[in-house]
Amino acid sequence: MNLLRRYLPILSWGAEYTGKTFTNDLIVAVIVTVMLIPQSLAYALLAGLPVQVGLFASMAPLLLYAVFGTSRTLAVGPVAVASLMTAAAISPLAAQGSPEYLGAAIALAMVSGLMLVAMGLLRLGFLANFLSHPVVSGFITASGLQIAAGQLGPVLGIRAEGETFVEIVHSLATDLGSINPFTAVIGVAALVFLFWSRSRLKPLLVRSGLSEKAAGTCAKIAPAVALVASILAVWGFGLDQQGVRIVGDVPKGLPRISLPPFDAALWTKLLVPALLISIVGYVESISVALTLAAKRRQRVDPDQELIALGAANVGAAVSGGFPVTGGLARSVVNFEAGAETPAAGAFTAVGIALVTLFLTPLLFFLPKATLAATIVVAVLSLVDFSALKKTWDYSRADFAAMVATILVTLVEGVEAGLVVGVGLSIFLYLYATSRPHIAVVGQIPGTTSFRNVARHAVVTDSEILSLRVDESLYFPNARYIEDRINEAVAKSPSIRHVILECPAVNAIDTSALESLEAINHRLKDGGITLHLSEVKGPVMDRLKRSHFLHELSGKVHLSQYEAVASINPELAQKTRDAERAPGTGGKA
Amino acid sequence: MNLLRRYLPILSWGAEYTGKTFTNDLIVAVIVTVMLIPQSLAYALLAGLPVQVGLFASMAPLLLYAVFGTSRTLAVGPVAVASLMTAAAISPLAAQGSPEYLGAAIALAMVSGLMLVAMGLLRLGFLANFLSHPVVSGFITASGLQIAAGQLGPVLGIRAEGETFVEIVHSLATDLGSINPFTAVIGVAALVFLFWSRSRLKPLLVRSGLSEKAAGTCAKIAPAVALVASILAVWGFGLDQQGVRIVGDVPKGLPRISLPPFDAALWTKLLVPALLISIVGYVESISVALTLAAKRRQRVDPDQELIALGAANVGAAVSGGFPVTGGLARSVVNFEAGAETPAAGAFTAVGIALVTLFLTPLLFFLPKATLAATIVVAVLSLVDFSALKKTWDYSRADFAAMVATILVTLVEGVEAGLVVGVGLSIFLYLYATSRPHIAVVGQIPGTTSFRNVARHAVVTDSEILSLRVDESLYFPNARYIEDRINEAVAKSPSIRHVILECPAVNAIDTSALESLEAINHRLKDGGITLHLSEVKGPVMDRLKRSHFLHELSGKVHLSQYEAVASINPELAQKTRDAERAPGTGGKA
Repeated sequence: MNLLRRYLPILSWGAEYTGKTFTNDLIVAVIVTVMLIPQSLAYALLAGLPVQVGLFASMAPLLLYAVFGTSRTLAVGPVAVASLMTAAAISPLAAQGSPEYLGAAIALAMVSGLMLVAMGLLRLGFLANFLSHPVVSGFITASGLQIAAGQLGPVLGIRAEGETFVEIVHSLATDLGSINPFTAVIGVAALVFLFWSRSRLKPLLVRSGLSEKAAGTCAKIAPAVALVASILAVWGFGLDQQGVRIVGDVPKGLPRISLPPFDAALWTKLLVPALLISIVGYVESISVALTLAAKRRQRVDPDQELIALGAANVGAAVSGGFPVTGGLARSVVNFEAGAETPAAGAFTAVGIALVTLFLTPLLFFLPKATLAATIVVAVLSLVDFSALKKTWDYSRADFAAMVATILVTLVEGVEAGLVVGVGLSIFLYLYATSRPHIAVVGQIPGTTSFRNVARHAVVTDSEILSLRVDESLYFPNARYIEDRINEAVAKSPSIRHVILECPAVNAIDTSALESLEAINHRLKDGGITLHLSEVKGPVMDRLKRSHFLHELSGKVHLSQYEAVASINPELAQKTRDAERAPGTGGKA
Repeated sequence: MNLLRRYLPILSWGAEYTGKTFTNDLIVAVIVTVMLIPQSLAYALLAGLPVQVGLFASMAPLLLYAVFGTSRTLAVGPVAVASLMTAAAISPLAAQGSPEYLGAAIALAMVSGLMLVAMGLLRLGFLANFLSHPVVSGFITASGLQIAAGQLGPVLGIRAEGETFVEIVHSLATDLGSINPFTAVIGVAALVFLFWSRSRLKPLLVRSGLSEKAAGTCAKIAPAVALVASILAVWGFGLDQQGVRIVGDVPKGLPRISLPPFDAALWTKLLVPALLISIVGYVESISVALTLAAKRRQRVDPDQELIALGAANVGAAVSGGFPVTGGLARSVVNFEAGAETPAAGAFTAVGIALVTLFLTPLLFFLPKATLAATIVVAVLSLVDFSALKKTWDYSRADFAAMVATILVTLVEGVEAGLVVGVGLSIFLYLYATSRPHIAVVGQIPGTTSFRNVARHAVVTDSEILSLRVDESLYFPNARYIEDRINEAVAKSPSIRHVILECPAVNAIDTSALESLEAINHRLKDGGITLHLSEVKGPVMDRLKRSHFLHELSGKVHLSQYEAVASINPELAQKTRDAERAPGTGGKA
């Protein structure tokens, strides 16, 4: 039963479901449905797919997330970055518009879904952690720029072709001459209206008497208003005859449920892109889920979320949809409108189904320019250059990883950008730990504390070298520490004892152990004793399983003071009992 | 002048060179020359090259190392593992025995040499540190097995073909029927004699009155004795007519000095193998150099060693040789025979040159089986299965990396083995740091110290959650720590304060900073205050450059005791003044 509850969170919240919750979730579902329609259509176009595929991807996934998801408020469906990554993954495999292209998109959702479920069952959620925040932020900024550039084509009625930002901008620039004025008027008007409604509509409505919440909700459905207005304009003025491209016939009716055919060659080609989409989608989704859950002090289970997201993608695949994930904007709307349970998502799915059944004929005159404008406005809010400045101020290494991710994504595409970003951030971390901060420490007069000789007025003994290594000892830094100790000892012929103070050493691996053994032997050959102090419990447990402690020429001391006092008790005690110098309390 | 001295260590020791040092170095050179001849010939055959290439590779490199090297006793030249890697790198590019094959070997030495010099000038020696000891040990064990298996072919006079251990063993097994009895007798006799002389000859000589040192030296030149004996046997009994394969005509004379032709396509193909050979060779070389230098309290400069090794390889390339590095066995002989300066190496080069000029006709009847036996005995001493047991006892992660390196090397070959070993050891380290040890801590009665509640009898306050994270906070563990804190807080509704104790936090990167900000906001939303304690100086310096400290709901305290005392002074003081429980002094 516990296992069932763990894998089927619906059993927990379903048991407490009341009539009041139902009414509440229903109202929320209406608002989210209205908001989702333009997004679903637009992101399908962004992925290079027919618009109805976007609607299909907004039904089954929501139902399945309601069954498996642990977040009460996360709203899944097609999102901008995953749609771009879908296009990038399947464009090399099939021609846009062909049945093979659609088949590849469905297969991608299937592979990605199965991968996510497997990662959830194997508790591999930690893999997502290797995407650092600066890399994710840089990647999303670059993806947002690429998407916005690509959508400027439909907005202006010109070509915007290419796999990368650089190619798209080049394509836009060469085709600027063939702008269709009618398309451009609709597109730019939609852009202006949407940007305006995003920042100005809510305050305006509040001033005219609406409640804060109602005004916020109205502002969120502005894209739907733009849709209706532009449909009316195209229909009223017959603009489709003037070269304005419209959505046209959208097949009516629900998707057919069927397992996508297993195509080993195709699935193999999709493995890497599916992994990248899965991880990026999961990172986006789990961040939103955690943030919203914390606001109401609810729990989200990261491993179960993998399973839920996987189920949602499998659901998308079997119902003719494409990869989905939890989206920020829609989840916030869901949350702010007051969704109490994942049932709100299920009701939204029903709403989308009703639209698919009855309202698709109304979409005939919908201009693609308006959908493109919806995307541009949505993704430009993802572009965050201020993060560059903030990261630069805080960490040069993280800044380098972020800039590399942005540049490689813009020039080489999304997959290369991600891979370079992750690789570089791991390398820079390893590089930093390979040259750890090593302080020579001495005793602060009047205390038993030891601090960096370079930062404090401390007492040292010319026969004792006390070193504090501020890093775990492991293979990338083992030899560095050996070198530093050799160097320090070669410089000072008076040294007879070396003490390594280890409060910040969280682990000692086999390489570092061998380095310690080598240091110990070399020092012994030179007539110098090696001691350790403040070794942590788990590190000590492990050292006891090796021969090192038997071979160690000196001893392991509980504290640095005890270590020094065991060698030169007079000086240690005299220093401890001395008057404390002013201003030496800080830590370094 | 300082710069010149740094890059030309010969200026330092050359200035102090005396007649006595000269005599001494000369004697050493004779011993090392006798030992080097069979090795040079054998390793050239191992690399698939004519024997004289091995002699060529033992002249110029030694002279150049004498000029640029910082170790007084390191002996460079062809070694087993680098020779195997050379064969693995160039076999796919050209047919063994063709001029293209020799050209590729020379080009490999050139590319590797230039790479090493560049790494030295750019101070990239730390790259070698990413080869952990278990990976190097596993790699050398597997390479040793592969080399030994391959040499069993010539020892028995059968075929031993293949790129990997598995293929070679298969080839040996299928060709066992065609053993040449004369070859096998020579090969096995050489094997038995060499194994015997390795372990028994020295004690025997000591017992018969020789000094320890002289006996050791005699034992080391046993391979040369085996060479002479087998040459005489083949010549005396005309065994070359019985199918015993001999070295045959070795061209007399010194190598022609010429720059190898620049072939962009070839050099590009050699980049990765050259990098791997460079790094493996450097790791072997610097370990030997450091160990020997420490015994006499001399200094070795790791970056200058890269330049010296690079110069040695460039020297090998321009004089028709193949990749070289510092070898363990010959360096130890050099050291024990009493080499005082790198001049001993230069004199050895002269010795090899004399052999090349005058003695190559004597090598005509040398059976290849004897050379193969020399290699088998030399490499089996590299195979170290006891390291497996030792590593298993100490660290399961390191054991996994070691076993993976061995298996992949045996099955897929040397390059795959190295890449998998390095990748896996980095991944396992990152995985471990992605789930750091996090202890809930409480105050030990009678002290101001805080320890793990699971290990010690400590006092806690139901409103305060004190956590100690034993790892730097960075992207792979940022979300894990978030989850753990969310979990802990969700479990205990009484919590009003969370204190993170940070003595083992050596860094906080941008991702972890954002996680801390998220934790702070979420806790604040839930009415909980977040505090930090014992933040290190460098970490604090960086936090001050962010907005985090302004947003932090609580404070940063110098010690965990101060943090708790600022919230519940009564309990903290009462606990401090309580009687200390027995046996709670340890660290955990």
